[in-house]
Amino acid sequence: MTKGEQTRREIVRKAAPLFNQKGFAGTSLSDLMEATGLQKGGIYRHFSSKEELAAESFDYAWQKAVSERLDGLDELTDSVDRLKKILVRGGCPLLNTAVEADDGNPILRARARKALQAWTARLTKVISEGIKERQIRPGVDSLKLAQRIIGSLEGALLISRLTESDAPLREAREILDEYLEQNVRAPRVHSKRASARSN
Amino acid sequence: MTKGEQTRREIVRKAAPLFNQKGFAGTSLSDLMEATGLQKGGIYRHFSSKEELAAESFDYAWQKAVSERLDGLDELTDSVDRLKKILVRGGCPLLNTAVEADDGNPILRARARKALQAWTARLTKVISEGIKERQIRPGVDSLKLAQRIIGSLEGALLISRLTESDAPLREAREILDEYLEQNVRAPRVHSKRASARSN
Repeated sequence: MTKGEQTRREIVRKAAPLFNQKGFAGTSLSDLMEATGLQKGGIYRHFSSKEELAAESFDYAWQKAVSERLDGLDELTDSVDRLKKILVRGGCPLLNTAVEADDGNPILRARARKALQAWTARLTKVISEGIKERQIRPGVDSLKLAQRIIGSLEGALLISRLTESDAPLREAREILDEYLEQNVRAPRVHSKRASARSN
Repeated sequence: MTKGEQTRREIVRKAAPLFNQKGFAGTSLSDLMEATGLQKGGIYRHFSSKEELAAESFDYAWQKAVSERLDGLDELTDSVDRLKKILVRGGCPLLNTAVEADDGNPILRARARKALQAWTARLTKVISEGIKERQIRPGVDSLKLAQRIIGSLEGALLISRLTESDAPLREAREILDEYLEQNVRAPRVHSKRASARSN
């Protein structure tokens, strides 16, 4: 990595929490200068616009959140357990960005949409694999379930943040957990045999 | 209403869609001047700050959304039908405001929190009444169900907006609808009698 690339990456690393906290419009140049310790020229030597810096910062925050969520996931062989593990990881850069990028910020909006699509695709894949492995019921609609999981968590996160209480988020996870066990997980083969024997 | 009050109300009515679309930080003074047709002095004669105007605008948008959701609700005597009717009304000023007001905008945050609390209380009351009237199962936790409904819809709305598709929101409503019928609505007394007779 060249020194220029290092500086660029360092700017993104310091700008990301600012954009996540204050939003795109709420983050001023002086906020960015203070956080990075650079002058305006020092920042804009590396980025063509605030939009570009915000978009890179979103990608950085998103990659970090995704890798936290996926960490250790490969060690689990059961698809439902993998979905349940994904549920307990916190925080989401998507929430802020998706709402603010809704109008008048096409670059940021495109990034947020791409991130959501990639995340949905990843969950859908975990679910489809689970169906193939007969760990998940064959009738489950992978895409709908993935969207349901993401939607429930984002909505609960919004309420949790606004009420400054973990309870709504915890509750949403419990409901999803119960749903996964009762409506998504395929009945275990050995328990079927056991019940067949007992009859 | 005095002329001053009329002007004040007119400013709020014109500013509300702007704040809802562009957010607090994203709405500039020139946006507000253009929308209201007033000069800076003409606006700030009526409001002490942009925060105050944004807070009033949120209240206005929220009241409008709430009254749309509650319109005709009293005509329904069944609590589950009332909940289901609430589900189909669209749009939510809370989503934008809640996210943006999360940091560094205490006035707007307080309004959004108060709106969420009032809305939660109202749904909770519909559910509690339903339990009392034996239309809803006695084991249902009114507050948790209210939060679940709000959380699911807000999350689905976020995804719908980002993907520019009504499908996630429609899907969330279908799931809630099914949940209300299967897990919330009390078994009907006359069908119990009918099944008792048939045995």
